[in-house]
Amino acid sequence: MNPKQLAGEKAVEFIKEDMIVGLGTGSTVYFTVLKLGELVKKGFKVKAVCTSVATHKLAVSLDIPVLSMEEVDHIDLTIDGADEIDPDGHGIKGRWGALLFEKIVAANSNQNIWVVDDSKIVDHLGKFPLPVEVIPFGYKQIVNRFVELGFNPELRMEGKETFKTDSGNFIIHLNIGLIADPVQLDRTIKQIPGVVEHGLFTGIVNKAIVADKSNIRIIKYR
Amino acid sequence: MNPKQLAGEKAVEFIKEDMIVGLGTGSTVYFTVLKLGELVKKGFKVKAVCTSVATHKLAVSLDIPVLSMEEVDHIDLTIDGADEIDPDGHGIKGRWGALLFEKIVAANSNQNIWVVDDSKIVDHLGKFPLPVEVIPFGYKQIVNRFVELGFNPELRMEGKETFKTDSGNFIIHLNIGLIADPVQLDRTIKQIPGVVEHGLFTGIVNKAIVADKSNIRIIKYR
Repeated sequence: MNPKQLAGEKAVEFIKEDMIVGLGTGSTVYFTVLKLGELVKKGFKVKAVCTSVATHKLAVSLDIPVLSMEEVDHIDLTIDGADEIDPDGHGIKGRWGALLFEKIVAANSNQNIWVVDDSKIVDHLGKFPLPVEVIPFGYKQIVNRFVELGFNPELRMEGKETFKTDSGNFIIHLNIGLIADPVQLDRTIKQIPGVVEHGLFTGIVNKAIVADKSNIRIIKYR
Repeated sequence: MNPKQLAGEKAVEFIKEDMIVGLGTGSTVYFTVLKLGELVKKGFKVKAVCTSVATHKLAVSLDIPVLSMEEVDHIDLTIDGADEIDPDGHGIKGRWGALLFEKIVAANSNQNIWVVDDSKIVDHLGKFPLPVEVIPFGYKQIVNRFVELGFNPELRMEGKETFKTDSGNFIIHLNIGLIADPVQLDRTIKQIPGVVEHGLFTGIVNKAIVADKSNIRIIKYR
């Protein structure tokens, strides 16, 4: 079976009836949402908060009851994908441009599970580009700052236009190479004026569900 | 004379011909912009970058040449107001809702001067509410977090609507009381997912121009 499907569907086992569940964005958690939709059709009671316009549309099309962040006082469990996870459970996320809402939902969830195929488990973060969401005003100065820091920044484009996030911001991809200290880098980048958020998620995930073509394993981080 | 006018006009003496100047927002720097407009009318050459739509309109109406942040490779000097300044030159800014663009411009300026009336010079920051700019998605969770931290948050309103910044975000005012460690608080608040920026400006200003009804003094911080 497709490892993404294996991992994505497995995650549904952790969703208990009457939970408020955060639903992430991407090609693996896509299968979580589909499977959850099947359960809901059979009468399973759950409410969801979505991390992107895309996931929101998918959930609504499957008749999963969706709440806005304003309507929830807590989130029991969030299931999301990841681009890379290191042995400490620090990760890079945001390939789909939804890192800001993903991080806000994750930070406000009692538990976080990431669903990934085996290729996402790495010894050190940094092969995958790190997305940084920035305010359009002054983005050029931030690009220059990243150049000085040796982070090899690239402004994300969509055809000939600058890519815009669901919040109307720009994304700068950093090609840093191996990241020696993710926690320090997390703070350094977020502290820059004009940086809204970035795709380094340190100390957030509780468990990863990892699949290859035939096996599923669960890694517990905290 | 009005202390705001005294301090605001004095700042123009620090603007040299051919500089790229950042222009702040508020009732004191307003007089800086007016005075600079007079000089420009007499042939003084300068270019400006503005921290708000309001200042942009004012500068353009006075025929001050205005550039966007994309068009400048550096800013020589930024002149802005402040709500409070402590003896280390840490300050609270953003009363006018423009703190994000103000901080981006300040962080990219070679020199920063703040123009204030005497009442803004304090021993400790914190009497003045500290504005925090947040993404609308998940703002309620941030308000709850600030309540837990004892920061007495208040969502800024405009009549019956939530106030929106030039970037379409919300402002939460924190009524913290005396701030023991501004540098630590700066990092703590900015690190929260969903926080775009806040009005604590630590380690940024070089000089303050301070006026009461009849005297002007200049305080040098760094």
